[in-house]
Amino acid sequence: MKNQTYRMTMLFDFYGELLTERQKEFFDLYYNEDLSLSEIAENSGISRQGVRDVIVRAEHVMQEVEDKTGLIRRFMAMSGNLQKIQDAAEGIRLINYRQYEDPAIDSYLGEITDAVAALKE
Amino acid sequence: MKNQTYRMTMLFDFYGELLTERQKEFFDLYYNEDLSLSEIAENSGISRQGVRDVIVRAEHVMQEVEDKTGLIRRFMAMSGNLQKIQDAAEGIRLINYRQYEDPAIDSYLGEITDAVAALKE
Repeated sequence: MKNQTYRMTMLFDFYGELLTERQKEFFDLYYNEDLSLSEIAENSGISRQGVRDVIVRAEHVMQEVEDKTGLIRRFMAMSGNLQKIQDAAEGIRLINYRQYEDPAIDSYLGEITDAVAALKE
Repeated sequence: MKNQTYRMTMLFDFYGELLTERQKEFFDLYYNEDLSLSEIAENSGISRQGVRDVIVRAEHVMQEVEDKTGLIRRFMAMSGNLQKIQDAAEGIRLINYRQYEDPAIDSYLGEITDAVAALKE
């Protein structure tokens, strides 16, 4: 399951609060804290298979919400457009650096870079 | 309830697919098609109160997901940063128009404007 950690982390970031406390805890320990199923089982006093079932169920709950709403997909599609903005701002910065040395243009470019950074957070 | 149409439309846009078919249908007729509770009741053969209950329940389901995930809040926070990008691009456009008339800068600004527009969709 851990070869899907990136997808799982995205699901948990978006939809983790929809899980039960136990689902949240096991999911977090397994994917974010990198504990093994056996370690979680030992600490929580249930079987390894029981831990696995909780985590798989948590994944299904979150994946179902994503399949229905597509919100992670929408967020991901945004990052391509942010890259385009950043590239264009960089193009203007180079022209300004080589030809005009206009501080007002640089200041505006700084605002664009800051806003893109805030959108990527 | 219709004085909250904007909020309801946002909820439905983000989380509508999490509703049952009946919840989706009544919610859509009431908020998007602007039918009255009585009209929906008449067309569907259940009581006005029954229609109301379905719509209120649908709202609660979606509001609960939003309260837990805050995804609409996150999307809304983005629009302030997109406005900053647009304003800065406009500032550069004016400087370029008045002083430099550089077509390469205009072309980059066009790319920024297009990317912002795509992000606002």
